[in-house]
Amino acid sequence: MSRLSNRIESIQESATLAMAAKAREFKSRGIDVINLSLGEPDFKTPQHICDAAKAAIDEGKYFSYPPVAGYQDLREALAAKYQKENNVPYKAENIVISNGAKQSIANVMLALLNPGDEVIIFSPYWVSYDALVRLTEATPVLVKGTLENDFKVTAAQLQKAITAKTKAIIFSSPCNPTGSVFSRQDLQAISEVILKHENLLIIADEIYEHINFTGDQTSIASLPGMFDRTITVNGFAKGFAMTGWRVGYIAAPKWIADAANKMQGQLTSANCSISQRGALAAITGDLTPTHRMVDEYKKRRDIVFHLLKEIPGIKANYPTGAFYFFPDVSYYYGKSYDGKVIANGEDFCMFLLEKAHVSLVTGDAFGEPNCIRLSYAASEKDLRQAMERIKTTLLTLA
Amino acid sequence: MSRLSNRIESIQESATLAMAAKAREFKSRGIDVINLSLGEPDFKTPQHICDAAKAAIDEGKYFSYPPVAGYQDLREALAAKYQKENNVPYKAENIVISNGAKQSIANVMLALLNPGDEVIIFSPYWVSYDALVRLTEATPVLVKGTLENDFKVTAAQLQKAITAKTKAIIFSSPCNPTGSVFSRQDLQAISEVILKHENLLIIADEIYEHINFTGDQTSIASLPGMFDRTITVNGFAKGFAMTGWRVGYIAAPKWIADAANKMQGQLTSANCSISQRGALAAITGDLTPTHRMVDEYKKRRDIVFHLLKEIPGIKANYPTGAFYFFPDVSYYYGKSYDGKVIANGEDFCMFLLEKAHVSLVTGDAFGEPNCIRLSYAASEKDLRQAMERIKTTLLTLA
Repeated sequence: MSRLSNRIESIQESATLAMAAKAREFKSRGIDVINLSLGEPDFKTPQHICDAAKAAIDEGKYFSYPPVAGYQDLREALAAKYQKENNVPYKAENIVISNGAKQSIANVMLALLNPGDEVIIFSPYWVSYDALVRLTEATPVLVKGTLENDFKVTAAQLQKAITAKTKAIIFSSPCNPTGSVFSRQDLQAISEVILKHENLLIIADEIYEHINFTGDQTSIASLPGMFDRTITVNGFAKGFAMTGWRVGYIAAPKWIADAANKMQGQLTSANCSISQRGALAAITGDLTPTHRMVDEYKKRRDIVFHLLKEIPGIKANYPTGAFYFFPDVSYYYGKSYDGKVIANGEDFCMFLLEKAHVSLVTGDAFGEPNCIRLSYAASEKDLRQAMERIKTTLLTLA
Repeated sequence: MSRLSNRIESIQESATLAMAAKAREFKSRGIDVINLSLGEPDFKTPQHICDAAKAAIDEGKYFSYPPVAGYQDLREALAAKYQKENNVPYKAENIVISNGAKQSIANVMLALLNPGDEVIIFSPYWVSYDALVRLTEATPVLVKGTLENDFKVTAAQLQKAITAKTKAIIFSSPCNPTGSVFSRQDLQAISEVILKHENLLIIADEIYEHINFTGDQTSIASLPGMFDRTITVNGFAKGFAMTGWRVGYIAAPKWIADAANKMQGQLTSANCSISQRGALAAITGDLTPTHRMVDEYKKRRDIVFHLLKEIPGIKANYPTGAFYFFPDVSYYYGKSYDGKVIANGEDFCMFLLEKAHVSLVTGDAFGEPNCIRLSYAASEKDLRQAMERIKTTLLTLA
């Protein structure tokens, strides 16, 4: 096994695998496990996007290799979207389309980072940030947001973490796993810190852009001086319920887009042509289906928030985007059942899987061992039932 | 730019870009350029595959993330294909599906290679082998097949090139760019050399498997002792005219499949779900469309071979697979036109682009500067016209 490969042995792997195996075992025994562990919409891809993909197949013009960076018309449409909706003057030359936003981030990190570079990761964070930084043999530097500040890292915290080795910062807003949204004011303060340091870059993961209940979706690239410092990451998976289609992208200064394009040209070439035609319909088409999904997520957010509050000992922020809760459940650590002690988040999740038949993810995977992640990308009925089961089961411990 | 990124600056990049720019310029001026530079079928994806992809969209069950290694039923179908057609006892656990065979190779190299490792590349070779080895900071060791031996590297040549640092060997059969096919006997001799060296692996790129006019498509993994030493690479792009859909795969010993899967889990996750459903139809369905395409390629191969023989000074092997000729054109090096000297393959291709309006690729890109690559994935009419133009134009030099 290569050195690079060994660097991506992830700490949470065994726990997650054990949990998934247990969930499968329960299902095979006919036990109705409610799965709140998934990071993907429970909606279907909107019909007009499906229709566009099918039409592209019928047209017979999209069977050959797309350009490595993606079809020109899709890149232009994405640039136009960022100009119009996000107030960032991206052009097609700034856009590189990839096999999911994960690859978008991988391309950028592989193209830019060297061993010894430091990358500041706002924590709690999406698991792949850490793995990808380590894959390049750069050093992840975790800066923790507190539950009291809605899990958001502050400009002052960022300033303290920057060293001469800091090459980049990465964060998501709306955030997976916390559901937090960085306001324009938050980002303004962060950008002022960044601009004090020559060549410092920020990777802004906006994949949950559409699932934002605040009315303030600010792209940090739109703030004064930040165009040249920002790699914006986005994609179609969350806002358009297109995870399986695998279409992500970056929008970045041309030299970075060129570098990501070159890396992608060696790693994978373009992603699926038909998916790109679907994505074009998504970005240029009617947003009503997206708005309907977002309304539904918002409604579920409120339902789960109120049900969570009824459970003793659980502390949660009020998420304003994405489709996750990230409650602190450490109140239950040290409690016992069937002669076993719940020592950590992994034990806590395993307890709820075994006793409540609800599948969750331990916060370890996201850099916060006191928390667990609960996805509300599930039906209202399942959510209500899961919350009832969780509450009843936890009350047996209290 | 990262150190890794700098390692993939490819030598042929500037030449290829200049050529592509010139071809675009000609086209924009209404000049009819015949493009014989492409590495992809000129056929459409067969209808039953398109229908399966459309049906998968309509079913509404394939919008969420596929498993990282691909859908289980597709992996099982591929394992069954290798058992039945190639006599290799792969199971689903040995298969990892990726965003094209390029990613399949990238995953394996990133997962297995360390700086300082040597990888023997049978030359002439597909451009990405060299780039991907260099991306991992391992060292590519080129071993050249000769035109006289149909460009095939021999077991004796291989034996001489192996050192204590040799980690793996990579080759393609049928070969891009030479069209050569390694016979069972060739592979038997190569496998005997490999088995003398503990832990030595071979990456066998069988992406052109179906486009083989010899009747002998031997997978080296099927030879005694070679299952544990071989990473078989294959995909749907060439045999099923599915380049844009992006479905490649490896079949490999479980520990390597697991390592590739882990790498892919960090780099991209799975490839497109809908493409995978199309691929399932391809691998389990009627091969008549594939056989028709192959018959057509074979017919074109013979046409071009006879036309090539009519051109003075050109030496070519008789390709028995893929859809390329890789003639030695060095006879023309040193000749002049319009006061310019044709010093190398790049100049030769530029000359034919400018004067014959035929687009080819210089052999530099494939490790053989005396050759050029001519793709016959083009209509018979275009091929005849292109060959006529090439002949007439070259005669002005002779």
